[in-house]
Amino acid sequence: MNTFGRNFRFTSFGESHGAVLGGIIDGCPAGLTVDFDFVQRELARRRPAQSAITTQRAEKDKVTFLSGIFEGKTTGAPIGFIIENNDAQSADYEEIKNIFRPSHADFTWYKKYGMRDFRGGGRSSARETAARVTAGALAKIILAEKGIAINAFTSQIGTYKISIPIETIDFAETETNDVRCPQPDVAAKMIDYIKQLKEEGDSIGGVVTCAVSGLCAGTGEPVFGKLQARLAAAMMSIPAAHGFDYGIGFEGVTLKGSQQNDEFVLKNGKTVTATNNSGGIQGGISNGMSVYFRVLFKPASSIACPQQTVDIHGQAQTINIAGRHDPCVVPRAVPVVEAMAAMTLADMILGGRK
Amino acid sequence: MNTFGRNFRFTSFGESHGAVLGGIIDGCPAGLTVDFDFVQRELARRRPAQSAITTQRAEKDKVTFLSGIFEGKTTGAPIGFIIENNDAQSADYEEIKNIFRPSHADFTWYKKYGMRDFRGGGRSSARETAARVTAGALAKIILAEKGIAINAFTSQIGTYKISIPIETIDFAETETNDVRCPQPDVAAKMIDYIKQLKEEGDSIGGVVTCAVSGLCAGTGEPVFGKLQARLAAAMMSIPAAHGFDYGIGFEGVTLKGSQQNDEFVLKNGKTVTATNNSGGIQGGISNGMSVYFRVLFKPASSIACPQQTVDIHGQAQTINIAGRHDPCVVPRAVPVVEAMAAMTLADMILGGRK
Amino acid sequence: MNTFGRNFRFTSFGESHGAVLGGIIDGCPAGLTVDFDFVQRELARRRPAQSAITTQRAEKDKVTFLSGIFEGKTTGAPIGFIIENNDAQSADYEEIKNIFRPSHADFTWYKKYGMRDFRGGGRSSARETAARVTAGALAKIILAEKGIAINAFTSQIGTYKISIPIETIDFAETETNDVRCPQPDVAAKMIDYIKQLKEEGDSIGGVVTCAVSGLCAGTGEPVFGKLQARLAAAMMSIPAAHGFDYGIGFEGVTLKGSQQNDEFVLKNGKTVTATNNSGGIQGGISNGMSVYFRVLFKPASSIACPQQTVDIHGQAQTINIAGRHDPCVVPRAVPVVEAMAAMTLADMILGGRK
Amino acid sequence: MNTFGRNFRFTSFGESHGAVLGGIIDGCPAGLTVDFDFVQRELARRRPAQSAITTQRAEKDKVTFLSGIFEGKTTGAPIGFIIENNDAQSADYEEIKNIFRPSHADFTWYKKYGMRDFRGGGRSSARETAARVTAGALAKIILAEKGIAINAFTSQIGTYKISIPIETIDFAETETNDVRCPQPDVAAKMIDYIKQLKEEGDSIGGVVTCAVSGLCAGTGEPVFGKLQARLAAAMMSIPAAHGFDYGIGFEGVTLKGSQQNDEFVLKNGKTVTATNNSGGIQGGISNGMSVYFRVLFKPASSIACPQQTVDIHGQAQTINIAGRHDPCVVPRAVPVVEAMAAMTLADMILGGRK
Repeated sequence: MNTFGRNFRFTSFGESHGAVLGGIIDGCPAGLTVDFDFVQRELARRRPAQSAITTQRAEKDKVTFLSGIFEGKTTGAPIGFIIENNDAQSADYEEIKNIFRPSHADFTWYKKYGMRDFRGGGRSSARETAARVTAGALAKIILAEKGIAINAFTSQIGTYKISIPIETIDFAETETNDVRCPQPDVAAKMIDYIKQLKEEGDSIGGVVTCAVSGLCAGTGEPVFGKLQARLAAAMMSIPAAHGFDYGIGFEGVTLKGSQQNDEFVLKNGKTVTATNNSGGIQGGISNGMSVYFRVLFKPASSIACPQQTVDIHGQAQTINIAGRHDPCVVPRAVPVVEAMAAMTLADMILGGRK
Repeated sequence: MNTFGRNFRFTSFGESHGAVLGGIIDGCPAGLTVDFDFVQRELARRRPAQSAITTQRAEKDKVTFLSGIFEGKTTGAPIGFIIENNDAQSADYEEIKNIFRPSHADFTWYKKYGMRDFRGGGRSSARETAARVTAGALAKIILAEKGIAINAFTSQIGTYKISIPIETIDFAETETNDVRCPQPDVAAKMIDYIKQLKEEGDSIGGVVTCAVSGLCAGTGEPVFGKLQARLAAAMMSIPAAHGFDYGIGFEGVTLKGSQQNDEFVLKNGKTVTATNNSGGIQGGISNGMSVYFRVLFKPASSIACPQQTVDIHGQAQTINIAGRHDPCVVPRAVPVVEAMAAMTLADMILGGRK
Repeated sequence: MNTFGRNFRFTSFGESHGAVLGGIIDGCPAGLTVDFDFVQRELARRRPAQSAITTQRAEKDKVTFLSGIFEGKTTGAPIGFIIENNDAQSADYEEIKNIFRPSHADFTWYKKYGMRDFRGGGRSSARETAARVTAGALAKIILAEKGIAINAFTSQIGTYKISIPIETIDFAETETNDVRCPQPDVAAKMIDYIKQLKEEGDSIGGVVTCAVSGLCAGTGEPVFGKLQARLAAAMMSIPAAHGFDYGIGFEGVTLKGSQQNDEFVLKNGKTVTATNNSGGIQGGISNGMSVYFRVLFKPASSIACPQQTVDIHGQAQTINIAGRHDPCVVPRAVPVVEAMAAMTLADMILGGRK
Repeated sequence: MNTFGRNFRFTSFGESHGAVLGGIIDGCPAGLTVDFDFVQRELARRRPAQSAITTQRAEKDKVTFLSGIFEGKTTGAPIGFIIENNDAQSADYEEIKNIFRPSHADFTWYKKYGMRDFRGGGRSSARETAARVTAGALAKIILAEKGIAINAFTSQIGTYKISIPIETIDFAETETNDVRCPQPDVAAKMIDYIKQLKEEGDSIGGVVTCAVSGLCAGTGEPVFGKLQARLAAAMMSIPAAHGFDYGIGFEGVTLKGSQQNDEFVLKNGKTVTATNNSGGIQGGISNGMSVYFRVLFKPASSIACPQQTVDIHGQAQTINIAGRHDPCVVPRAVPVVEAMAAMTLADMILGGRK
């Protein structure tokens, strides 16, 4: 299942070390002006080798649109696109082609498919998310027309955690540092920590928080298609994502109903909630407040220290993972979280009120 | 969207105070023996008025199958069923018919649909999950034939938290107490705490943990249909669910890759992982270990203390919620988590290896 | 797959000799007034024992709505409904329980499911279409609000064929005779012929023609979701349907492009076509003219003469089919064609412009 | 909706005069050997300029696979591919950019999307079917492994009609002539007729008949997913397709049940039907006999004679269509019918028995 969405439908293809990554965006309304520079800027935020704390694989991630756009505008036809792979170094993987890397997808995909494209993880590589960011950029263009903005940021790396309340964050700060944390003092500590782990050949995980503003009340579906269910599915489909919550989430587990309920109040004649522990969602449907959610990412599985494992022949092996890797996937996951959120919301909005 | 799944497809209908709840299970293989007592026992675990710590609405939740079963066996035809509502007290809701209850679905559903079935929350009521448990029971019968078992339990209520490792839990303990916590001493404290909150007219949330055993390696789908994405969507569609993680999850946020990776080792000639921080899933596909995940539930929104809110006419109001409510939804959510997990897995397994 | 549609989604259940037929209509917009008498009238058009030329099984086909309607209006919640089976005579089928009736679904369903509900054809019975007509009635209510009308009629029975051009037909005539042919003189011959065949224990097929008016230009989808592809799928899902064409269809096979193209002309400032050989559809999308299509129905397979066949044990058998059957399914198929057309169009219209 | 199928899922993109056509095949099982020459041969059957009776647009239709294939075998990952457009002559369309060509998709697509890629019909062009044939070739590889063969051929052009019974046709004859009719004497007349119409600047339609052999009994789905419904939807999605029937179809409209029923008989211990008026399908499910169906194609809409029409500004115009066109689409539609049938069946078979 390489398709996401029902109304804004994105289907992707391509492997880490294949010729290209690509995809088809279907369901994009006609007449939309495509800001190609914006799309490319979004890709730059996810691109490898963007800073000292990411992998140094040198990919430009230049997208080429192949269809669905005529004279700068969408036509309503499916939008096909490709992104070339220029710096794949498949030789790095030759010696581990028969060995299952711990906590990678090697073993499970082999079990599922009975075969394996070992070069850089093949289709299971997070490089696949470049295609998602491209489609997400188109979804953002749709949402922007409706006044909906999506801002994700790094809120925790290991023990380093943002301390300012989400309502007061200046999202313009997010892109001012390599870790994409909008609180500069915390960002500095996160970056130092990641550098230290890179030195050690180790890795660390963290949390991306995402805020959606401008979503009018009444978006979402009851029962199985709840807004939080759709967002959770989208987020948990991102490589290395291990957890999701929204609103006050797991931090509110000890709070009572009387402490957590969001009372309704009138503000300038509009019904709003006095607090936002619900994260902008009640009964699966948006209430007009900002939608907040968090996505947990585990540490990158590629670490430099020797690890015990098993090979394709059922023999115990010790593995040392070569290649170029991220010590922490979180900073590059920020635009991916935004892309998936954008596609989820574009999909729901294009579906109409049902 | 009141349909769940693509291969094992469940569509539900019915409101809290309507004539019946019901549903259609489509895609159930032919020739399956339906253990009607088992189905009814599953419903009894979710049923209101089952213990001193639940709502006292007296529903028998007796399911009537209407089709798809002939001489005790499934025929491959869709299985329609209904469950009667016998003890709806709609009068309780008459005086709040125009008032939006805080943190309930009243406001958002009104915004979406422009109208409202105010009686007991209508379609947004968690009573809808009785239909889910029925369908989940059928899914469990499918899974049982393949040696797959699903065991959920209450692992946290407020600050009370299970302390024994999941691998050593005796699931037979779960059903021995009203809160469905398999650690009896912790269960006792949880029950006392819930009783106290009931007394106070307040409510509390908690966490349900779920373990799936017997799932062979290779189940799941890459990219958008990852096993964790499907499970997350299923869980976050349950009323009051606010968070999801799997494996070590949020508790592992401070651990490094070298501390969290699951090394592969040989055990009786079989490739297994030495630890299970991955929760049995790598790259979106099962690795043959037990699948573990957690679901966070917020406190029930219906509390007895006066709350500020707004009515349908945009007027500020103070509300006191009457009616019969659960002080803590977690114990009754345990079978719902199992039902949703069972449907998710049955859906994936019936889809074949793709 | 017992679900039809993506936006207006109808899922049905129930067998010919089970307790009930039923279904769930999901995606019906909120706030729609349900004219229950209209729904019942639609069912009366499909009902057995409605005239001398149909089966005499005495079913009232009274529909009971179970959810999704509050105070006479749809709420946006799924609409569950049931129709009781009152006059099933399962004993008629006891002696052929192990014999495959020629041109019936007995053999193929047995091959698919490995078992069989032999009573009246079980799920494969055309009695299942009562549920479709119920859902179609709701779809018609949606369409009526947009000025879209659907009128089907019997255009051919055996060699008896309507001769007046479709543009000049008075649809009010259709319901004035038992065969539902709007040309009275032809209707009379059709009825006589069907009565004669009934006498002989034989059966005959025919053609239902359907006209959709009021569909504005621009409805449909390109490529795989073409309006004619959706309509064809809907029609060919009706029991006994064996062919479909639209516009001039098979009758135009000898005409050249210069004879068949529909020139555009201006009429009261509106772009229309001078002829309508395209049946209102070009490139898969409606052009604003009436949409015309035909559905071929084969003769009913249940005939009274002895037939050679094979039983479940692989033994040759001679079968004489007892029970009450239609000598010609066409008159009762007319409302079913309309129902499927209505659901197809409601589904497309609710999907929005994509 | 540019996606076809649920299990074997094909999504296409590209316009007639864009850079490329392309698509993604998702759900193809891993481990399949891809015969690239076979794929290319299939494309050659659909390619323009293949003979004197087709358009002379010179396209090589060379497919480039971009993903999902590793060392000559499918990996289970999505298969992306592109086909370059080399001989688009967009200037031909410049002067009719604001004029709606009669019986083309220009008007309806403009009404749907509010804009238009006028170059060669853009996305509505039948050039899009090159991508379908590519995906169909992969589907055929899947089916061939199960012994299923698909053979389509031209059975009628204008009044020229094949006269030998379908059971006795030698499919090896089909590709021996330009019109793809397996009866050489009829083929010769068809070719002469098409050449004459080409001379006249006119066009003609016809019928493609398709035979599927090797499909075991039990394939298909009841109710809405009937095999004939799926095939009809697939066929009616082909540009210019105007009708569909299966088995004896419209030709049997005057035959009685006693004349049309297919009696079951034993043949070498196997249950088969004595006749095959059902076209291998009963109750929506295959019965093990060959599946036969017909697809009607209308005359190509691009004809050289002057036609009345209307332009984008609502002004009456006379149009003379330049460019290179097929006088009869039927011969090139033969491989497209096969491709769509192959995808439909692969989709059903990969879905398992449900």
